Amino acid sequence: MSPRPEAPAKVTVLGAGSWGTTFAKVLADAAADAGAPRTVCLWGRNAQAVAAMARERRNDRYVPEVRLPDGLEFSSDLAAALDGAGLVVAAIPAQSLRAQLEIAAPHLDPDAVVLSLAKGLESSTGLRMTQVIAEVLGEGTGTTAAHWLRRTCVLSGPNLAMEIAREEPTASVVAAQEHGTAAWVARCCAAPYFRPYTNTDVVGTEIGGLVKNVIALCVGICDGRGYGDNSKASVMTRGLAETTRLALALGGQLTTLSGLSGMGDLVATCSSSLSRNHTAGRLLGSGLTLAQVQDAMTQTAEGIKSAPAVLALAHRHGVDMPITEAVVGVLRNDIPVQELAPRLLGRDLKSEGNSA
Amino acid sequence: MSPRPEAPAKVTVLGAGSWGTTFAKVLADAAADAGAPRTVCLWGRNAQAVAAMARERRNDRYVPEVRLPDGLEFSSDLAAALDGAGLVVAAIPAQSLRAQLEIAAPHLDPDAVVLSLAKGLESSTGLRMTQVIAEVLGEGTGTTAAHWLRRTCVLSGPNLAMEIAREEPTASVVAAQEHGTAAWVARCCAAPYFRPYTNTDVVGTEIGGLVKNVIALCVGICDGRGYGDNSKASVMTRGLAETTRLALALGGQLTTLSGLSGMGDLVATCSSSLSRNHTAGRLLGSGLTLAQVQDAMTQTAEGIKSAPAVLALAHRHGVDMPITEAVVGVLRNDIPVQELAPRLLGRDLKSEGNSA
Repeated sequence: MSPRPEAPAKVTVLGAGSWGTTFAKVLADAAADAGAPRTVCLWGRNAQAVAAMARERRNDRYVPEVRLPDGLEFSSDLAAALDGAGLVVAAIPAQSLRAQLEIAAPHLDPDAVVLSLAKGLESSTGLRMTQVIAEVLGEGTGTTAAHWLRRTCVLSGPNLAMEIAREEPTASVVAAQEHGTAAWVARCCAAPYFRPYTNTDVVGTEIGGLVKNVIALCVGICDGRGYGDNSKASVMTRGLAETTRLALALGGQLTTLSGLSGMGDLVATCSSSLSRNHTAGRLLGSGLTLAQVQDAMTQTAEGIKSAPAVLALAHRHGVDMPITEAVVGVLRNDIPVQELAPRLLGRDLKSEGNSA
Repeated sequence: MSPRPEAPAKVTVLGAGSWGTTFAKVLADAAADAGAPRTVCLWGRNAQAVAAMARERRNDRYVPEVRLPDGLEFSSDLAAALDGAGLVVAAIPAQSLRAQLEIAAPHLDPDAVVLSLAKGLESSTGLRMTQVIAEVLGEGTGTTAAHWLRRTCVLSGPNLAMEIAREEPTASVVAAQEHGTAAWVARCCAAPYFRPYTNTDVVGTEIGGLVKNVIALCVGICDGRGYGDNSKASVMTRGLAETTRLALALGGQLTTLSGLSGMGDLVATCSSSLSRNHTAGRLLGSGLTLAQVQDAMTQTAEGIKSAPAVLALAHRHGVDMPITEAVVGVLRNDIPVQELAPRLLGRDLKSEGNSA
């Protein structure tokens, strides 16, 4: 796909959870900042909730406190929302993305660009989100998966939604197969408080964003057990090392994992009490069962779903991921939660390179 | 130097601040754990304070709450403390290390191994701590700097002293020119709660440990200005990138900077309210002058001293370090503290690799 000189006249965000709603605000603020006459539309499934958002310019359930920009439009009509959209943003949880996109596909312009905000591996297939998008849209729009892989980008970085909603300065990464496509998308979402960088490493960017949820579960468990910053920093460091090994095995780049969408996203998630995966880990560490944790949380902790799929992917590629393996052991009740940290921190003395 | 099969009969720690005292406890606990009949001696300058420590088995000023092990000996007599010591640990602030070692040198066994816990560059020379140690001991013991470079190791990692004093599980890295020397030192300090890994990248290990103090100042300033985890994670990520560039230019290894003594140390320091450099940055960010910050703190924030020397070293090697440069600007009053974060986060859109 050649670089697109013109900005899209319409951008549609599918999914009105906390990240989808926040990113719709970013897009509307970006259009206003650029003086671009662009429609930004936020689509949600729940007609009543969408009507309330349009009326009150607020998403009370997921992004309270924050007033949504005047320019933002709202819709619960998928066909109308997608009509004429040159950029479609998928802000749908990893495990429901396929089903939602199958419904959306017939309404998509085959020339549209798709931007994935979803982080995770599909449990049933082990596919990354850009792979799911390309597969579903290739079938549903009468084109091919390869056609959509060229048009599908991913956005990832140290991007706690609530901080962005409050307009705290944030950087992020847009990755696409072709640099021109990534830059085109980056220009659509560059707001005064939101700065998207670009790269062409889709695999590395996606792997960084999804494995960090598993590492954040582990850091959360350490928090819940009362471990200090020394231990947690070690888990983050080794967690990024095993994430990097997996990304490299899949064709990703080292610099991506050392960058904002790798280390940056991991550190932000593991530092924040706003992170769902970190919170879920903390509750597990404090002694709750997995079922109790899931009952206690209003939104999905994606790492819980993705962890076994990450481990399976690592096994298929012969990659050693001891932290992911231990987290899966805890989630499956094979490892008592109090044995997790001693197991990870208590290996025999050796040189660091061999043990990382 | 060939690997030493035998553990030392005596280990002496020079410097009874928080890290020196804590590390003396680690060494005594390690000897007890190994069942080794080893003398561990903690030397401090202040005879009265040392006598109080010996009497109360507590360092009230620097490590309150923690009882020091029964096996630990105390001394304020340098000649007696160093007599027969096979391993000498230098736990002396970077800017006083040279003067202290000049006094100690005549009492050192030329076959001893020296372990540096100091983190910083000497302001007046720009030398790393192992370079200062080798230079001073080469002259003061009638040998050569090269003789001591082979015998001088560095310990660095995500090692907040207070957490280690409380026996929270912690990993660290011992680096020496020869692996056998690093492993010999690691065996001396492996306690149930303290796990030293080894490598042979002295330069990378030292650079990671010292530049992180400068980055922690910047993250502290962001904290003091009320920035969130997204911004702080970006500063840490780019901070590690510029640290890595400097280390590679000096002959260090990428894996060291991605490991416990690079990323691990940086993340622990920047996450913790226990870190002096982080605290100094927070006070600067909240509007205090440099003089007020220094008055408010009982111990040195080493990053304040090392930052200009780091920048000078980077310039000599043609390495771009925008965060260090901005911190030096704030310390010199050339950049108002409120302009630091916008300057670092507000660069033009570009691809991440070019801007990191």
